[in-house]
Amino acid sequence: MSSHPAAPSRHIRLTSHSGGFGALPIRWGAATPAERGPVVGTTTTRAHRNVIGTHSGSYSVYRALAVAAGALDPRHKADLTNTAPTDAIGPYPQWSEPGKIVSLDPWGATVSQVFAGEMAAGYDIRPTIAVTKAHVILPEVIEALQKGRLKADGRFLTASGAAVVTKAAIEPVWWLPGVAQRFGCSEADLRRVLFEETGGMYPELVTRSDLEVFLPPIGGQTIYIFGNPADLANPDVELTARVHDECNGSDVFGSDICTCRPYLTHGIEECIQGAQRGGVGLIAYSRKEGRALGEVTKFLVYNARKRQTGGDTAAQYFARTECVAGVQDMRFQELMPDVLHWLGVRKIHRLVSMSNMKYDAITGSGIAVGERINIPDELIPEDARVEMDAKMAAGYFTPGAVPTAEDLRNTKGRGLDA
Amino acid sequence: MSSHPAAPSRHIRLTSHSGGFGALPIRWGAATPAERGPVVGTTTTRAHRNVIGTHSGSYSVYRALAVAAGALDPRHKADLTNTAPTDAIGPYPQWSEPGKIVSLDPWGATVSQVFAGEMAAGYDIRPTIAVTKAHVILPEVIEALQKGRLKADGRFLTASGAAVVTKAAIEPVWWLPGVAQRFGCSEADLRRVLFEETGGMYPELVTRSDLEVFLPPIGGQTIYIFGNPADLANPDVELTARVHDECNGSDVFGSDICTCRPYLTHGIEECIQGAQRGGVGLIAYSRKEGRALGEVTKFLVYNARKRQTGGDTAAQYFARTECVAGVQDMRFQELMPDVLHWLGVRKIHRLVSMSNMKYDAITGSGIAVGERINIPDELIPEDARVEMDAKMAAGYFTPGAVPTAEDLRNTKGRGLDA
Repeated sequence: MSSHPAAPSRHIRLTSHSGGFGALPIRWGAATPAERGPVVGTTTTRAHRNVIGTHSGSYSVYRALAVAAGALDPRHKADLTNTAPTDAIGPYPQWSEPGKIVSLDPWGATVSQVFAGEMAAGYDIRPTIAVTKAHVILPEVIEALQKGRLKADGRFLTASGAAVVTKAAIEPVWWLPGVAQRFGCSEADLRRVLFEETGGMYPELVTRSDLEVFLPPIGGQTIYIFGNPADLANPDVELTARVHDECNGSDVFGSDICTCRPYLTHGIEECIQGAQRGGVGLIAYSRKEGRALGEVTKFLVYNARKRQTGGDTAAQYFARTECVAGVQDMRFQELMPDVLHWLGVRKIHRLVSMSNMKYDAITGSGIAVGERINIPDELIPEDARVEMDAKMAAGYFTPGAVPTAEDLRNTKGRGLDA
Repeated sequence: MSSHPAAPSRHIRLTSHSGGFGALPIRWGAATPAERGPVVGTTTTRAHRNVIGTHSGSYSVYRALAVAAGALDPRHKADLTNTAPTDAIGPYPQWSEPGKIVSLDPWGATVSQVFAGEMAAGYDIRPTIAVTKAHVILPEVIEALQKGRLKADGRFLTASGAAVVTKAAIEPVWWLPGVAQRFGCSEADLRRVLFEETGGMYPELVTRSDLEVFLPPIGGQTIYIFGNPADLANPDVELTARVHDECNGSDVFGSDICTCRPYLTHGIEECIQGAQRGGVGLIAYSRKEGRALGEVTKFLVYNARKRQTGGDTAAQYFARTECVAGVQDMRFQELMPDVLHWLGVRKIHRLVSMSNMKYDAITGSGIAVGERINIPDELIPEDARVEMDAKMAAGYFTPGAVPTAEDLRNTKGRGLDA
């Protein structure tokens, strides 16, 4: 049994009510942390909460399990000694430009510093961003070293093939009025749909219109910076960047049905070269598995593609996803540029991506894009030709010829039995 | 604006009420699908729902965004044509042994077949498991081929280094009475804590004790099978298995502070060799980033480890996590063996893991374990020695000497400036 019992006799409040005392206001987009106020998602002192949801995204469910199992004292407050960022990011003017950042807290990395007074006064304020340093060792980078495409310099790339990076993990923090504006709907509609279409998650989305900030239980982002993080904000320093959406099957396991890992490792190679040229490199990795449809849907679509009459063709690539999921894609790149604005980015000189959706979202948010870098043909796995041709015909960037309707019928993938 | 408006004039129900008509009962653990009944998590016909939460884990939030943006008709039902599993899994006796499986739906892969009648009657039933085939190409496997540790056979491993696998994606489906039992708490306490410690997610956890099944908004699992999936259930066929918990920083980016990707690729190599010997291999991959603490907490801990007085030592490895997170680990391997029981596993001949927590959970659930295979020393990255020594001293399996307290003080990691 639990050593920290859940106090079963206590009254359960199904939804909180506004007008409580002790909660600090959040003025989203204010220029200084003092005016903005901290995001308080604690479950410890409920009266201090000024958001819907709680910290750690999906992992709040595991935290609850830890409490249920008696392993974690629900009153535990994080001891943040020595956890501060290894590198300062900002503040940048974009942090308070209206509507530039709506899905992360730009002050989320430095709460111990900028909200020290509130923390000393007893508010349980947690970082939503953590910044550290790492050595990353990818077999593809070692191969590029061996083949001479990359050269070690002992600073950005060691002789043993480790790339030296600054990296940051970022939890989603949604300012609902701004998120609604990005998606072209009213805030009331967004709140209602988020509540109803998740099967009734967080009634406060509809009962607490005074709470404008939502910590959704979804995966966040990780960024990897090659070179000096401060250079990201200097448009005169060449920035090579890839914005990558998670694909566990390829990124980790190297499935040959798509180009995700080859694109990622090619992007990293470009980033290292960029840093070595005196520029800076950036990979922004978003947890949006299977176009944010999740992996079950993704695998169902694979089967539907491989088994349809005529086999797996580029012509039918998007149609099969739409049959199963109702849409071709749920990634909604609308929120993606926020992380770039957090980093102060004004210009991406070399964007390592073919996606027109990513390009449109980035340029639409006011960031200039110079060159677009596509993946070299030799890096495309055999079975992934179907995806590549379908995407190019749908408007993805290619410096070469766009496949015709006839080409799309002829580009076929492997069957399930092969 | 939305082309599928959210009908703002409609009444919002904050929590549903029992006694509705049309919902099919779920009798968890029943021997046949007809007795068990389908899991209905649809948001389309609310009266049909017989669970708390909805499908696709965290990605239900993205689905809601798609509806808010007008891109997805909320009434869309999945067209499941051609999506059925490529390989039959079960049914196995474990599927109805009391308490053996409490965190996934064993009938989740075959809903189109076993609940065809209910679907024809208009129930929107979705698969929670998808089974497909893939070719996976890992640079480490290609290197093993080149070095002669692996040999291509054209069946399990192609000459170009692709491993031929059956893989499945599995969404969490929690039967709350069974989950509570695993964690040694009452169902009422579990429900209350899941609600309260997530900041008020799903009030039906506390208002609808008649709904026993919860689809939590967390990541699921992916399994990779090397060889014949049916052999997994045959204790006479040698089974090599690794149960792996996600670590994006290592699994994808190859960070040298831990051993996650080396362990995973070593496990895959062992699985391929096992299949080639006439056995079968299994990798079960769980989305439990950073010991289910999430990546922000993980990076905060890295900084605290590297900056503490005396530097990053094996002696202080677990203490730093506990300061920040309140616990050393939130993965709770208690639910992990469910996927093995779904696959019919009775015996793991070669368990590629050092974790005593995983070993205890597996054997405690009634699965025999033969040999335990540890990672070869030459695969441990330089900076990961701190983690390895701390874990061995804490009870992780090692065939060699267990480090002493003196050893732990002497095993030091790289500083943040190196």
